[in-house]
Amino acid sequence: MIRKEETICAPATSGGGAIALIRMSGSRSIEICDGLLIPADNRTKFTEQKGYSIVFGEIRSGEEVIDDVLVSIFRAPHSYTGEDSVEISCHASPYIQQKILELLIRNGAVPAQPGEFTQRAFLNGKMDLSQAEAVADLVASESELAHKIAINQMRGAFSDEINFLRADLLHFASLIELELDFGEEDVEFADRNKLMEIVDKVLSVSEELVSSFSLGNAVKSGVPVVIAGSPNTGKSTLLNRLLREERSIVSEIPGTTRDAIEDKVVIDGIQFRFIDTAGLRDTSDVIENLGIKKTQEKIGIASIILLVADINEGSEKLSQLLIKIHHQTDTEGKKFIILVNKIDKALLNSKGEYEKDIVLNPGEVLLFISAKTGEGIEELKEQLSKSVDSSRLNSENVIISNIRHYKALLQVTDSLRRVKSGLENKLQEDLIAIDIRQAIHYLGEITGEITNDEILGNIFRNFCIGK
Amino acid sequence: MIRKEETICAPATSGGGAIALIRMSGSRSIEICDGLLIPADNRTKFTEQKGYSIVFGEIRSGEEVIDDVLVSIFRAPHSYTGEDSVEISCHASPYIQQKILELLIRNGAVPAQPGEFTQRAFLNGKMDLSQAEAVADLVASESELAHKIAINQMRGAFSDEINFLRADLLHFASLIELELDFGEEDVEFADRNKLMEIVDKVLSVSEELVSSFSLGNAVKSGVPVVIAGSPNTGKSTLLNRLLREERSIVSEIPGTTRDAIEDKVVIDGIQFRFIDTAGLRDTSDVIENLGIKKTQEKIGIASIILLVADINEGSEKLSQLLIKIHHQTDTEGKKFIILVNKIDKALLNSKGEYEKDIVLNPGEVLLFISAKTGEGIEELKEQLSKSVDSSRLNSENVIISNIRHYKALLQVTDSLRRVKSGLENKLQEDLIAIDIRQAIHYLGEITGEITNDEILGNIFRNFCIGK
Repeated sequence: MIRKEETICAPATSGGGAIALIRMSGSRSIEICDGLLIPADNRTKFTEQKGYSIVFGEIRSGEEVIDDVLVSIFRAPHSYTGEDSVEISCHASPYIQQKILELLIRNGAVPAQPGEFTQRAFLNGKMDLSQAEAVADLVASESELAHKIAINQMRGAFSDEINFLRADLLHFASLIELELDFGEEDVEFADRNKLMEIVDKVLSVSEELVSSFSLGNAVKSGVPVVIAGSPNTGKSTLLNRLLREERSIVSEIPGTTRDAIEDKVVIDGIQFRFIDTAGLRDTSDVIENLGIKKTQEKIGIASIILLVADINEGSEKLSQLLIKIHHQTDTEGKKFIILVNKIDKALLNSKGEYEKDIVLNPGEVLLFISAKTGEGIEELKEQLSKSVDSSRLNSENVIISNIRHYKALLQVTDSLRRVKSGLENKLQEDLIAIDIRQAIHYLGEITGEITNDEILGNIFRNFCIGK
Repeated sequence: MIRKEETICAPATSGGGAIALIRMSGSRSIEICDGLLIPADNRTKFTEQKGYSIVFGEIRSGEEVIDDVLVSIFRAPHSYTGEDSVEISCHASPYIQQKILELLIRNGAVPAQPGEFTQRAFLNGKMDLSQAEAVADLVASESELAHKIAINQMRGAFSDEINFLRADLLHFASLIELELDFGEEDVEFADRNKLMEIVDKVLSVSEELVSSFSLGNAVKSGVPVVIAGSPNTGKSTLLNRLLREERSIVSEIPGTTRDAIEDKVVIDGIQFRFIDTAGLRDTSDVIENLGIKKTQEKIGIASIILLVADINEGSEKLSQLLIKIHHQTDTEGKKFIILVNKIDKALLNSKGEYEKDIVLNPGEVLLFISAKTGEGIEELKEQLSKSVDSSRLNSENVIISNIRHYKALLQVTDSLRRVKSGLENKLQEDLIAIDIRQAIHYLGEITGEITNDEILGNIFRNFCIGK
């Protein structure tokens, strides 16, 4: 699976735009490019150019001019991959891109696999594994906080933390193993209090990292929100309102197409992801009854439920609906925001009636809004924002957002808890040593100190081509 | 409309991918970037870097690190626009791109309008107007021949031709106008035969250019093809077969997403565009009767009609259909390819029956195919390819593909025909001079020797952002 000898190439940009970038990395990349490029001044020797310089010229296929291009040169080890690399900046025509890739391949490069450039950066020691994983998260980041987690991780804050923990445990292990060597003489070199101190410290940091995952994952993937309610209560108008408010900010910068965000809204730097709203995107509501399986499933995966009611339907109906939901679905740990909509068309006293009649459970909020006029939408956005405790992100705390790291850290905490209880129960050193070795192993897996083809394959398979 | 003092910025890539490119051009671009970029080595002085060099560093917004970036520097006049320019290569995260653009704008750049980089290249004399227009065509080119026309035009082959013609006419005009100056003395400086020779030559080249437009336009926009026929004759299978054969070639290179081509197929370097095939894309045929208005309209805009019949329906039905089509639609100048489909399921002798019974009109071809097994599809592709006389493209002839140029050249030929008849009829010099001036004017409009804000506005409005 892992190829180190080949020179790889791939498009690094996708789709439309004015310019496309084609990347090539490997020992033959400068030579292959040299065979296709005619510098514009007819004098420049491409192969003699320094790293971090650019050559303007034309790519030819025999007599046929393919394009005028800018080629950036990077020389090992001072490149992203650590290898000789070139980046060809051409016009973003599908034909041109394909033709240039064909030429590179015909002249000895091979098409890169997803993530292969970053994999090489890892294999060549330019970054550790958790930093490599952060590159993919960074490319995908659509909100301020997702970006913050990814860039901190890419720049090594998380790796540093893991490496400190690992160093502590290696120190611990060396002390324990020294005792083992002299085991028959029944010497006790290691101060058990000192050992306990190390384990307590590492365990506490690990547990904190583990507990940060729910925040990290929500921030990275978007907080799942579901919009529920009877037909014709204005659910689609509400969704469109939330989406539109976000869009208007983005569209101030021309050219930043954000079609991809579709049903995602960023509020206070946090992305909220509206689940299964396909039916809501039409102007007419889709008939959707609570109690049916589909709605239960939607509520099951949501963190936040926006329950929409029409103010003129009366509080009685809403009360019953709430009871029904709590009865039929598992609402444990979920935030309910009850939205009494259409207040612009409210009949007299209907608002007071709701305030009097609706009994809120803990974690439930009642808001009066008009999705149509926008009244109350600011309050709703505040409630959405407040539902995520992002205070941990404002400090310099390290947050984990990667499920692989989460799983590894669960193993670490498990092992360390066994170590701790072993120390408390004065267990034999060799048994303690097994658990400490296991904790060290799992920490090493996170940064890639310990790895194998399968782990690497799983990680880089999910990267995009050209990264 | 035209801004020359501002420093402009825009994303030059779009959508996904691994890397995004943000472009900035104008006298302040290096200074603005310097304010945001911290070179990785902490020593490099960004503002002192030479053109065609690259700096690695981080973009910061206050304390917040936005991204690790590569910045390419170009110094006036040695850049695309002819101005100081920088290109920031960052991770293709929507958040990062937006943030960097915001930072550039907050520090003094303004968002670029569509085509504004190329407009500046034109205004700064880096290219003429027809070359600037070719840049947009080049970016959009999806087939070999469309690419060939665009790159020849971008590299000045067409401009040279126009400039030669213009020089000839300017020479002509100077001779005529000399006579005018001495008009009262009734001197005839210009040799009328010589004048006629010049006009004939320029007229003949202009006419050839005008006549090349139908080919150029077909190649650039794709040759419009319609698939017609009774229900259940296998039209959708045929479309899928043609699309799939093309796709399989493209998909050999991973990462070259070609979603945009949808219902376009490139055969022998020529793009064929299937019109209004939305209904055919399902596996089941859409009921579609000939004689209805929609089909007539489709045939109206197509150059090629693929008329599909089921071999087991009998030749009689097809005969009647053909008569009906010719009776009800205007088929003048269109190529008909009659496809008798499902030969894999043909009953005995049915093929011979068709050959005997179907009377072909000029320009009509009869093929027996199986869209299901692929039999006969190669012949069909040959017929499609042959329908476009691309021999003119294989020589070094200049082909025009731009409707603005076409319209200007129509004016040129009109004016020159009047000049010619004026010479033949020994018209007064001053009247001839008016027409020759007009021809010169229209030639000058093509290359932008003569231009105005409105012409420029119309041209660059259709460019993409960042180009």
